[in-house]
Amino acid sequence: MKKVINQAEQVVEEMLQGVVLAHPQYVKRVEGFDVIVRANAPVAGKVALVSGGGSGHEPSHGGFVGRGMLDGAVAGAVFTSPTPDQVYEAVKAVDGGKGVLLVIKNYTGDVMNFDMAAEMAEADNIQVAKVVVNDDVAVENSTWTTGRRGIAGTVFVHKIAGAKAETGASLEEVKAVAEKVIANVRSMGMALSPCTVPAAGKPSFTLAEDEVEIGMGIHGEPGTHRESIRSADETAAHLLDKILADIDFTAGDEVAVLINGLGATPLMELYVVNRKVAEILGEKGIQIAKTYVGNYMTSLEMAGFSISLLKLDAELKELLLAPADTPAFVQF
Amino acid sequence: MKKVINQAEQVVEEMLQGVVLAHPQYVKRVEGFDVIVRANAPVAGKVALVSGGGSGHEPSHGGFVGRGMLDGAVAGAVFTSPTPDQVYEAVKAVDGGKGVLLVIKNYTGDVMNFDMAAEMAEADNIQVAKVVVNDDVAVENSTWTTGRRGIAGTVFVHKIAGAKAETGASLEEVKAVAEKVIANVRSMGMALSPCTVPAAGKPSFTLAEDEVEIGMGIHGEPGTHRESIRSADETAAHLLDKILADIDFTAGDEVAVLINGLGATPLMELYVVNRKVAEILGEKGIQIAKTYVGNYMTSLEMAGFSISLLKLDAELKELLLAPADTPAFVQF
Repeated sequence: MKKVINQAEQVVEEMLQGVVLAHPQYVKRVEGFDVIVRANAPVAGKVALVSGGGSGHEPSHGGFVGRGMLDGAVAGAVFTSPTPDQVYEAVKAVDGGKGVLLVIKNYTGDVMNFDMAAEMAEADNIQVAKVVVNDDVAVENSTWTTGRRGIAGTVFVHKIAGAKAETGASLEEVKAVAEKVIANVRSMGMALSPCTVPAAGKPSFTLAEDEVEIGMGIHGEPGTHRESIRSADETAAHLLDKILADIDFTAGDEVAVLINGLGATPLMELYVVNRKVAEILGEKGIQIAKTYVGNYMTSLEMAGFSISLLKLDAELKELLLAPADTPAFVQF
Repeated sequence: MKKVINQAEQVVEEMLQGVVLAHPQYVKRVEGFDVIVRANAPVAGKVALVSGGGSGHEPSHGGFVGRGMLDGAVAGAVFTSPTPDQVYEAVKAVDGGKGVLLVIKNYTGDVMNFDMAAEMAEADNIQVAKVVVNDDVAVENSTWTTGRRGIAGTVFVHKIAGAKAETGASLEEVKAVAEKVIANVRSMGMALSPCTVPAAGKPSFTLAEDEVEIGMGIHGEPGTHRESIRSADETAAHLLDKILADIDFTAGDEVAVLINGLGATPLMELYVVNRKVAEILGEKGIQIAKTYVGNYMTSLEMAGFSISLLKLDAELKELLLAPADTPAFVQF
């Protein structure tokens, strides 16, 4: 295992210290917990958003803590759900009196532990609501999931529900718009190479020299199949076909596009993918309101990418394009 | 070679198409050339900045085209200097009548070709000035360089000279502040793994399973030495020592820090490095005005990172913190 770390068991702690040292204008640590929250948390009179999950997906989710997105992020061990007490501390630290929305990616451990944290917070009379993101169209059920997995489309939930919260909306309204994003976002990915969880010390799976896995999850969970690597255009077209077949995207619809790198894929390659995605959408008469290209939800040093498509209406578009100011997502 | 591409010889063309399709609000193509410029270029009454170099360092430099940074970027073949005619087209496309500053990384081919482009533009009565960035303290002279190499510290030149140009400053003033950045920025990197130029089809060098190269350049040029991988803290301290020994950083100085990923290094690891860098600077009484962590100047899918330190004065700090709005660098 070749990594720029100290001890494997310290990697999350040291990363969190590094994040707070890098971005004191954005975030602070909840002392004693693997939780970072906005530097000015709690923000009075605003619904707060908390997300999180296993570490190893950076900049998800700590990189999205800031104005217009999240109020807090909980970092589990690498690829491991955060415990309920950690999530509970995040909720307490960000509640500004208007309630807290939990944005949960659909993994069984995450759903269970965020649920327990919600119950603990409600016992303290903190209003809590939750949404579960399940944007990955690749497979039903998976290694750690019942139903579909939550992957990079989650970033659109952070962005849009976060913008809604900034308007002073109620917890019910913020939850409703988050649910609307979830209903309208679809993703699918593929991997060229595995990644190594520091504590494990070796890759979690292997792929042959010319082999890729289509539909692979962000923790190396199996996808739909393995195949010999094909061209960027063929691969992009295949993933996009699956996404477009899953939801009713029609000519005249407006969408947001996210071409998400899994960690080790050069930006050059993500743009080559985007070229084909834009071409296909153009042929279908689907309008692109905004495109994001980069590493938004990674799997350590896995090579590969995912495509996410979010179908917009006027409300979602306005909230998507609203300003955000966080370590990893800044938009005027 | 496992890459998300179509044909190796089309990768720059298709990337550029993908960039323009992704970010039409920021950039447009100079038709027939591997040049992208601001969507509203030329901007009248403002000094324009042009940078570029071989492709494979994305988001450098096309990702930094936009308000407050570059006006144009020229993309050579992967790891290959752009030809003079390409640079010349960029200069013509962005000149708003107030002159053009060329920001050149110190590689012999780049310096020569940007020089020739400057002469071609001057023959058209376009005012051209140029600066050469040589921030890499690792080695004197290198595979493609006489003197020191230009690496990630170049991004600070783009940011600060770009902000100066937005104030309406003259070409001489913008050049002067770029020179001031160059005089005050130092960088050094290390690599854990090689990368593969698409047209070559195989890695440009090899490293043993436990071996890293200290001081390696962004095209795989040799560094100071190879060694067995050490802890993140030891490696960060070693690179920082070399940087701090090269320039007079003293207690009370204020600096900007860039922890730059080379392409395949998880953000988690970059933050672990930042933790140690911030600790060492703190012990020395050096103040950190702003920290950037992420992939700013990459080497395709090379694993590794560099540290850049920029010593600030009041002018540099104000310009660094000024707003920027580009595909890969947005700051309020």
